[in-house]
Amino acid sequence: MPYDQLKAECCKINIDIVAAGLVKLTWGNASNVDRKAGVMAIKPSGVPYADLKPSDIIVLEIATGKVVDGTKNPSSDTPTHLHLYQQFPNIGGIVHTHSDYATSFSQALTDLPCLGTTHADHFYGTIPCTRPMTPEEIKGEYELNTGKVIVDTFRSRNINPDDVPGILVASHAPFAWGKTAAKALENAIVLEYVAKMNLQSYTIRNFRDNAQPIPQVLLDKHFLRKHGPGAYYGQPGDKH
Amino acid sequence: MPYDQLKAECCKINIDIVAAGLVKLTWGNASNVDRKAGVMAIKPSGVPYADLKPSDIIVLEIATGKVVDGTKNPSSDTPTHLHLYQQFPNIGGIVHTHSDYATSFSQALTDLPCLGTTHADHFYGTIPCTRPMTPEEIKGEYELNTGKVIVDTFRSRNINPDDVPGILVASHAPFAWGKTAAKALENAIVLEYVAKMNLQSYTIRNFRDNAQPIPQVLLDKHFLRKHGPGAYYGQPGDKH
Amino acid sequence: MPYDQLKAECCKINIDIVAAGLVKLTWGNASNVDRKAGVMAIKPSGVPYADLKPSDIIVLEIATGKVVDGTKNPSSDTPTHLHLYQQFPNIGGIVHTHSDYATSFSQALTDLPCLGTTHADHFYGTIPCTRPMTPEEIKGEYELNTGKVIVDTFRSRNINPDDVPGILVASHAPFAWGKTAAKALENAIVLEYVAKMNLQSYTIRNFRDNAQPIPQVLLDKHFLRKHGPGAYYGQPGDKH
Amino acid sequence: MPYDQLKAECCKINIDIVAAGLVKLTWGNASNVDRKAGVMAIKPSGVPYADLKPSDIIVLEIATGKVVDGTKNPSSDTPTHLHLYQQFPNIGGIVHTHSDYATSFSQALTDLPCLGTTHADHFYGTIPCTRPMTPEEIKGEYELNTGKVIVDTFRSRNINPDDVPGILVASHAPFAWGKTAAKALENAIVLEYVAKMNLQSYTIRNFRDNAQPIPQVLLDKHFLRKHGPGAYYGQPGDKH
Repeated sequence: MPYDQLKAECCKINIDIVAAGLVKLTWGNASNVDRKAGVMAIKPSGVPYADLKPSDIIVLEIATGKVVDGTKNPSSDTPTHLHLYQQFPNIGGIVHTHSDYATSFSQALTDLPCLGTTHADHFYGTIPCTRPMTPEEIKGEYELNTGKVIVDTFRSRNINPDDVPGILVASHAPFAWGKTAAKALENAIVLEYVAKMNLQSYTIRNFRDNAQPIPQVLLDKHFLRKHGPGAYYGQPGDKH
Repeated sequence: MPYDQLKAECCKINIDIVAAGLVKLTWGNASNVDRKAGVMAIKPSGVPYADLKPSDIIVLEIATGKVVDGTKNPSSDTPTHLHLYQQFPNIGGIVHTHSDYATSFSQALTDLPCLGTTHADHFYGTIPCTRPMTPEEIKGEYELNTGKVIVDTFRSRNINPDDVPGILVASHAPFAWGKTAAKALENAIVLEYVAKMNLQSYTIRNFRDNAQPIPQVLLDKHFLRKHGPGAYYGQPGDKH
Repeated sequence: MPYDQLKAECCKINIDIVAAGLVKLTWGNASNVDRKAGVMAIKPSGVPYADLKPSDIIVLEIATGKVVDGTKNPSSDTPTHLHLYQQFPNIGGIVHTHSDYATSFSQALTDLPCLGTTHADHFYGTIPCTRPMTPEEIKGEYELNTGKVIVDTFRSRNINPDDVPGILVASHAPFAWGKTAAKALENAIVLEYVAKMNLQSYTIRNFRDNAQPIPQVLLDKHFLRKHGPGAYYGQPGDKH
Repeated sequence: MPYDQLKAECCKINIDIVAAGLVKLTWGNASNVDRKAGVMAIKPSGVPYADLKPSDIIVLEIATGKVVDGTKNPSSDTPTHLHLYQQFPNIGGIVHTHSDYATSFSQALTDLPCLGTTHADHFYGTIPCTRPMTPEEIKGEYELNTGKVIVDTFRSRNINPDDVPGILVASHAPFAWGKTAAKALENAIVLEYVAKMNLQSYTIRNFRDNAQPIPQVLLDKHFLRKHGPGAYYGQPGDKH
């Protein structure tokens, strides 16, 4: 069958985002593409990950959204994925999750600036948060408009989606992508990890002035009962 | 036996709330109903989850609270469950846990407003926190009064319990429900997840102005040693 | 052998505190007593939990601290345990860990007031933090003095250690106890859990005024695409 | 083969830092030395931990950085490790991770003062954060300069690296070391644990004044329904 490999890979990545701890219940979906064939494969809507088989995967034409393989309803987020593949020609996979730290930044309508090298190794600068969608965008073709607001954010802020392979959709959750579905998953993992660290770094910056170290005498007591010639912790013969 | 299926399902859901990570020690209980038979099944009081068997489950008449099957003491929260089934005619299952983020909102006497689509997918607006119970309510029929203060919260704030299937009991912990016991469990999982994300979103909102991105030169160094023509990370032949 | 049962139970509880997630590396120890025989059993110092066997356990006279069984060095915290058994005549087991939330309250020199029923179910009011130890107490018989400052805290603040079976030692970490070693472990688990929830409740209280719910139109879109007659999420035949 | 034991140990420690929960993706590396032979063994660059075999390990001369065994590219952080072994003559192993709490302190450019005995048992005082590197240091021999800024921090602040076996590199992540690679791993675990606890302790200190305990009547109700003569929780015959 022409799409067997694409569907098998799509199924695997959808299972991998669960194994990576990024998914609760059925919140999340991954897609991949065969650019030569002009098609995208995506998870069906609302199917539990534990039951997912390659034969459940839906294949659609990228240009038209027409289903070319599969019998189930595709993910309700399908129009978002299609629009991103249409507009970002270098990407080969998309991962959408509600991973909790990244989603908390989405809920706070807040960008993720680059605070360290973990971020810099994978995203070339700030990971943007989209503007809120308008009532018309929400009431209209909502999932397509979600894709459009993502693309608009990259264009209007002059960010290259190949260098910054992910975004926070305001009041919703993150999307990540990459040259391959495996890279998209990796970027989704990084996005969640740097979101957790940014939150922690902000808290440290705001609170650190209130630290109060222990007195020297207690530091001496504990360090020296375990280290050096006076150590008495452990068993005879332990090295200190 | 007439209640075998109901008891088996009740036992399963009580074990599932532990597997979902919502329960420490014996803090939590789940019930389900057979509306035609007019009965509710519930976990016995203080029995460790690891030992729970369908034959331990207690079955009671919803209207009267009379035990119709089972020999153990039912959960001490039984009067709360009975009252909710009496007053909320569309619900088929209730899950009570002390899951730690939701309980922290209970302890802070604080509603959970809807900050994002994860919440909106499952709860149609703010998840309320009850008012504190009065000394008379606490000293009197405490567990029944817990049910009453839950029902009063929905009535007085004009919230439909079918649309907002859960609540935070002030100074206590969350209750969630649904058309079925499986849906009640799902809603308890969502309630805990959005509580964690709300806490994180609040922190981000309060702290984000203090972020300080790394300098461009460090961003360049790290991104470009892994990506593009000058990359030197990894093994020869790795794709960047 | 006269102490075989006591040592087996002691070994089991020491392994259980690791299984409960309360221990990193070798930070922690549990003891139990045979009041009739007047002896206490405790973990050896610095032995990895993975290797712990009942034959490693040390048995000492409560009144004198004299070792009556075992060849290894007992835990360096032994004098603390002995003093607590001498002064708190109703307790049968003690668990000491560096579990991270409770220890963070110790490091902040901060009591744990009762914020909810999870706490109230197990501890009858505030879990105290000791005063800091004096330089003389630290330089002198440090571990014995740790026991003394614990006992002093209960006496001077008029708290009954049977009703509040645990404490935070300032700049150090928690101790919990109970009528049995199993109850001491349970109380150590509760202490850690309420410490985590208190921290979260404080943060919620301080930050909640800055919450900003999503607009009604987005709430409608997400709730109604999954619930009710207009739902289009999932597969045909799914119940909404 | 002369380096078989060194390479096997190096491989093991690299796998152990993953098992200890300190590593995401491929972020981290561990090295060890044979001081007599004057060589260091280190992980290859960008190889997934799951596939790591002793034969993948690279061995280099400490004094010159010349590869003496192994065919893969060594970790890109190799010049940092070499410099530390050259300058800190008593250390036998180095562990570098991006563990998330320690890295959050790096990202906040913030030292870790000693707040309690968990810290004092392993680090004899403040764990320093380096100064930010200059543009010249970043654009030049970046990984070597990372080693130099670490060494400079210890020298200029007059801290003994044998007593404080770890550091936070500003905007990057922690390095830990020890007499042996196993000790370096242990210190990396402690560094992450105390970073988490410092963050929590700071939050408690800043927020604790806003705690509001539950009323006595609710405390009485919950404690007394489980404890003492009036207890009605659990099954007949349970001990309270």
